[in-house]
Amino acid sequence: MKNYNIGLIGAGFMAKAHSLAYATMPMFFWPAPGIPIRKSICDVSIDIAKDAAQKMGYEKFTDSWKDIVSDPDIDIVDICTPNNIHAEIAIAAAKNGKHVFCEKPIAMTAQEAKDMLDAVQKAGVKHMLAFNYRRTPAVALAKDIITKGEIGEIQSFRGMYFQDWSASPESTLSWRFQKEICGTGALGDIGTHVIDMAQYLVGDIDMVSGFLKTYIKERPLQEAGQDKLGALQGGNKTGAVTVDDETAFSMRFKNGALGHIEASRNAWGRNNYIAFEIHGSAGSIFFNYERRDELQLCYATDPQDRRGFKTIYTGPNHAYGELWPIAALGIGYSETKIAECYDLIKAIAQDEEATPNFNEGYKIALVCDAVVKSDKQNGAWIFTGV
Amino acid sequence: MKNYNIGLIGAGFMAKAHSLAYATMPMFFWPAPGIPIRKSICDVSIDIAKDAAQKMGYEKFTDSWKDIVSDPDIDIVDICTPNNIHAEIAIAAAKNGKHVFCEKPIAMTAQEAKDMLDAVQKAGVKHMLAFNYRRTPAVALAKDIITKGEIGEIQSFRGMYFQDWSASPESTLSWRFQKEICGTGALGDIGTHVIDMAQYLVGDIDMVSGFLKTYIKERPLQEAGQDKLGALQGGNKTGAVTVDDETAFSMRFKNGALGHIEASRNAWGRNNYIAFEIHGSAGSIFFNYERRDELQLCYATDPQDRRGFKTIYTGPNHAYGELWPIAALGIGYSETKIAECYDLIKAIAQDEEATPNFNEGYKIALVCDAVVKSDKQNGAWIFTGV
Amino acid sequence: MKNYNIGLIGAGFMAKAHSLAYATMPMFFWPAPGIPIRKSICDVSIDIAKDAAQKMGYEKFTDSWKDIVSDPDIDIVDICTPNNIHAEIAIAAAKNGKHVFCEKPIAMTAQEAKDMLDAVQKAGVKHMLAFNYRRTPAVALAKDIITKGEIGEIQSFRGMYFQDWSASPESTLSWRFQKEICGTGALGDIGTHVIDMAQYLVGDIDMVSGFLKTYIKERPLQEAGQDKLGALQGGNKTGAVTVDDETAFSMRFKNGALGHIEASRNAWGRNNYIAFEIHGSAGSIFFNYERRDELQLCYATDPQDRRGFKTIYTGPNHAYGELWPIAALGIGYSETKIAECYDLIKAIAQDEEATPNFNEGYKIALVCDAVVKSDKQNGAWIFTGV
Amino acid sequence: MKNYNIGLIGAGFMAKAHSLAYATMPMFFWPAPGIPIRKSICDVSIDIAKDAAQKMGYEKFTDSWKDIVSDPDIDIVDICTPNNIHAEIAIAAAKNGKHVFCEKPIAMTAQEAKDMLDAVQKAGVKHMLAFNYRRTPAVALAKDIITKGEIGEIQSFRGMYFQDWSASPESTLSWRFQKEICGTGALGDIGTHVIDMAQYLVGDIDMVSGFLKTYIKERPLQEAGQDKLGALQGGNKTGAVTVDDETAFSMRFKNGALGHIEASRNAWGRNNYIAFEIHGSAGSIFFNYERRDELQLCYATDPQDRRGFKTIYTGPNHAYGELWPIAALGIGYSETKIAECYDLIKAIAQDEEATPNFNEGYKIALVCDAVVKSDKQNGAWIFTGV
Repeated sequence: MKNYNIGLIGAGFMAKAHSLAYATMPMFFWPAPGIPIRKSICDVSIDIAKDAAQKMGYEKFTDSWKDIVSDPDIDIVDICTPNNIHAEIAIAAAKNGKHVFCEKPIAMTAQEAKDMLDAVQKAGVKHMLAFNYRRTPAVALAKDIITKGEIGEIQSFRGMYFQDWSASPESTLSWRFQKEICGTGALGDIGTHVIDMAQYLVGDIDMVSGFLKTYIKERPLQEAGQDKLGALQGGNKTGAVTVDDETAFSMRFKNGALGHIEASRNAWGRNNYIAFEIHGSAGSIFFNYERRDELQLCYATDPQDRRGFKTIYTGPNHAYGELWPIAALGIGYSETKIAECYDLIKAIAQDEEATPNFNEGYKIALVCDAVVKSDKQNGAWIFTGV
Repeated sequence: MKNYNIGLIGAGFMAKAHSLAYATMPMFFWPAPGIPIRKSICDVSIDIAKDAAQKMGYEKFTDSWKDIVSDPDIDIVDICTPNNIHAEIAIAAAKNGKHVFCEKPIAMTAQEAKDMLDAVQKAGVKHMLAFNYRRTPAVALAKDIITKGEIGEIQSFRGMYFQDWSASPESTLSWRFQKEICGTGALGDIGTHVIDMAQYLVGDIDMVSGFLKTYIKERPLQEAGQDKLGALQGGNKTGAVTVDDETAFSMRFKNGALGHIEASRNAWGRNNYIAFEIHGSAGSIFFNYERRDELQLCYATDPQDRRGFKTIYTGPNHAYGELWPIAALGIGYSETKIAECYDLIKAIAQDEEATPNFNEGYKIALVCDAVVKSDKQNGAWIFTGV
Repeated sequence: MKNYNIGLIGAGFMAKAHSLAYATMPMFFWPAPGIPIRKSICDVSIDIAKDAAQKMGYEKFTDSWKDIVSDPDIDIVDICTPNNIHAEIAIAAAKNGKHVFCEKPIAMTAQEAKDMLDAVQKAGVKHMLAFNYRRTPAVALAKDIITKGEIGEIQSFRGMYFQDWSASPESTLSWRFQKEICGTGALGDIGTHVIDMAQYLVGDIDMVSGFLKTYIKERPLQEAGQDKLGALQGGNKTGAVTVDDETAFSMRFKNGALGHIEASRNAWGRNNYIAFEIHGSAGSIFFNYERRDELQLCYATDPQDRRGFKTIYTGPNHAYGELWPIAALGIGYSETKIAECYDLIKAIAQDEEATPNFNEGYKIALVCDAVVKSDKQNGAWIFTGV
Repeated sequence: MKNYNIGLIGAGFMAKAHSLAYATMPMFFWPAPGIPIRKSICDVSIDIAKDAAQKMGYEKFTDSWKDIVSDPDIDIVDICTPNNIHAEIAIAAAKNGKHVFCEKPIAMTAQEAKDMLDAVQKAGVKHMLAFNYRRTPAVALAKDIITKGEIGEIQSFRGMYFQDWSASPESTLSWRFQKEICGTGALGDIGTHVIDMAQYLVGDIDMVSGFLKTYIKERPLQEAGQDKLGALQGGNKTGAVTVDDETAFSMRFKNGALGHIEASRNAWGRNNYIAFEIHGSAGSIFFNYERRDELQLCYATDPQDRRGFKTIYTGPNHAYGELWPIAALGIGYSETKIAECYDLIKAIAQDEEATPNFNEGYKIALVCDAVVKSDKQNGAWIFTGV
């Protein structure tokens, strides 16, 4: 088992999730395909970086991401920053021969994503995006069922990602509401997770028609240092929200299936409701991440009087079965990140293509760009160019 | 309590549902606003009509709907026929001064609906459509909550009607698959129920963009006399399906809210899944008819650590509280029809506007026509003209 | 189809439910095994009786149940009175050669039940009890699954009946809280429904150990004429509650299976929550009446990675499939009573044993008596004598 | 932040769960009350111990637990062994002045538990048991709600723990089926989790009446080295099951509340179904660990027409809010163990009483002993002596 030194850029909640996975992945998947070593961590504040290194177990710290991408000790650059510097960091890391693991969405625009893809391909390094929700064992089970043809030909997909942490106008203006930092709002932040699932489970998306909507136009500024999702304690000053609170778009897949995706951060009562329902010619699937240990599955071929959605709890008989020895011991955010880490290290150690990689991320970015364009054209159908 | 003589045209499953309501509504709502009397029933087959009269308790029977609309004994003409003769019957009934109660959808096209509306308005008779699902107490509760502003300004609506009784290619070619009899398929048959709810709960629909899709192009012909939803026993001969199995469309309400509706008869595992989720600025509502005793309600104003969707079981404290003395004794199809019958008779007896009336039905027909037009134009946004 | 004249004693909510069924059963089950005719209705108040006759469609009315049991016109005496006069009426009816249909619980004590059973057997009339919840198609489906051995040998049963209509101390002192009228409280009123299901689905109950508990010792007296479940508007005077608000008891079935039953009218948030979970050697079943269109079923024999509870919606492929042409159109209280009426009339018309009959009711009464005895002996295990 | 050196005894699945928590707790709770250091790990097989040290990140390893308890480097002895050596190890550890963290159940019998309690009290060390399910934020929320009196006086508790990993007779004879190693079966293994919750949420248990039942009397022997929950691949030889597959018992709490607990490993379709429903005079609570992000809460004081169970997703506004920044990101088994680790280290670092400690564990053991005694006496009511 070879060691892989991680250089992590960013020290927020996502850094915590990644670091947990690096620290513990081999406990679950053993012998591990490789051992991730928490080598260096970076934050723009040297104090935060120092503190984060201690807190998350990194050997070194820095306040410059350039130190990370140029550090000869580092094998894998892990990008947990806001979206606006994904591209610059990833390209620099690739040029230095580092494997790149990047938080979603891949970038601010499809053009940036294309540049990133070109860079990693040119450098011949591995590249992967942190769409961790597809690592939920129940989602991987859905993929297995579909791949085996158990629900026949896919006819339609509808996906949702609903949250309410920023549904209140008192929720502060984090970077996730500022276009120059995040690119888009609900679309890029959460909608991309659903696009990833749609692409993963059904196939490439050919056309979209949709819109973006901003319900809350001004939010209280955050105080310095503060960046907590949904924090309500802002100051008296406010700033403009320059991205969408909600998006919804219809789509046509290249294989002819129909789809619809909605993403909203203004859905009171929905906390982290990532759901999809897929209808096939021979069955259906339903998934809701809020009840993520479960997959709902209906087979058309069941006897008429014994037919219905089956609630399958994922466990040792399913993908990522190494996680826990019986079903419903519990899949949490941790477990999705541990599974993701396994797939990342495995791809690198075994010189396989990682997934979802920058190519898939680029296609997601093309879909996002098309949605933005459709919105500007009053919902016109736009080819994604995927 | 005045008696109102009913002339019922059609003798299928819907006739049974209406007759149950006529026979029993006063047992629940007492003193009743009026007493419906099962006077005369009509079927194109005189044998079926005769049998139906005995089975459902009608005094007379006939094989000609013209007998019904011209019968001086009849006060209310109840139209439970296939869609293609709604207009002709309703207009004739109105001309003869009968109140008209008509199954949904109102007609084959918006033009027919307009003619029906003109006729009843000119005649000054009452008119109502059998969108019974909005009589589910939980849906009426949703209306109450929205009207009182409890979830604030409505921002978005998504509605679904999923069934699977005809998802198998072996399911026979009933009139519901033949354009010349039904007009449209999933759109008119089940989608209109959701449009009715959208219009009822959110408001008028300004624009739509959507499509119609037919998955199964040929179905076995039904044998003579057979017309049972989902019957699998067809003969060897097949006929062409000329309407949609599924429709999906996005929409914008006149008040600015956004919406999306899907209706599919090819959703394996969904039996009669009529669901909607509404997001408002101050809360959310979710309803699923398969669990129709319940309404899910979330208030934004609940304390952060005690907030969530509340599952309210409807009962004597809610609309149609006369039905049963405690919640969850059970709302079935019967109960929705009994409540509907009460509203019909009350409107007539008290000379009030019934709802949903032909005007509302006409607006629904305009939405349907716009969806059909959008489908022909590859999903272009179409003004409904509502 | 022969007519059967009904003499209904009692004019409360249950009379309404029965009358609905008499009026409409043939609309569903056609040709009907027989036609119930609403002939005569009785209430102790002649005014109420007169009003009820008009409201529920009876030809005659009286204020003396003796008129009903002695009326040569009457074929079936239907007892919807409080429990304390079930025995007297049933015995008198049987002596007069009437078939007897009686609301649950059968009587105040097992001794009374035995006397009733002796009387109907001696008279050779049909006898049936209105445990309507077992007519829920999903419960009948559970019976079918168990009978066919699909979940193997039954190992354990747990059943609950939770309500909250009287959980408030302000809920008034209806007859259901007065021992001399009702015998027992939650035990007889609602617990007997669960005992009926246990006996129906699993088998005879051999021993019990349990208790009765009264949480609210005094309740406001009802005003004259008022008897509405859960009515909160009582006067200033209060009266003593002399029965249990809650009961719980463990049991052993004769076939060796283990069981536990709880019934409470003090379960806030549970409206009419009748639920059971049955574990067999080859599978499990779960049912919850609040979601009564559904049965949950798990087969041990399903592949390990595709195993889970299946949610089956009952419809035309299941028992009482005549009710509605597709699943989830909706089973309500009405539908359970219509199915019950069908079974009653069929048993009489075809000279079959009705079920649950007075023999089964007597066994339920023995179980209740044993629970009462166990409670008095601090939970000692008591043989039921079944 | 002081370091605390951990000596972990046992290298199975539970060791993995504990090690994950040691490695990552400070990432979540920061500044941490103390830093757990993975110092030494022990397994009876030196090869497994060596491998486990590498896999789980321990500095040292040994095949003798005596090395751990006598190691001057070790501050906290963590016992993840089968039940039969809990007492010996814990007592030895205490004598050497080590804090003791022990997996559940505390011991084979109440006597053993008492000896352990005496030892830790005499030594003045901290002691805690790994009933991790009470660290589920939703269970901690239930405690908060009850403590604040929000559902009034507790009237009744019913708890369940249902699994099916060993429901098949082909599931092998792990130590969990051998009395001399585990003491009791379903009772000690899973029932104790529910007893812990009952005691935590409602109070001390005064009397019990119950039974133990073994459905599968012989199981295939495990091959050497194999010990995986639910493993189906046994050899041809079988061995006797000497403990219960299922237990059920009624109980009376000291405060007068009534209760019932069931634990079964033969509940097909239930994977890790730990559920409780609590009725209070002013509300109710329902929890199901299979949907562990949620707590169901009903307030009696809600308006009658807006009352129902609220589904609260736990998150940053609840106990252990440091885990993830928004609700429903996901609580898994990992998160319960991280929260547990925090409470353990905090109690030691801040010199507070840990909970649940050996005193609470001893009381749980008394309840178990009483259930065993009741079973031997045909379900007689037995005082627990708590």
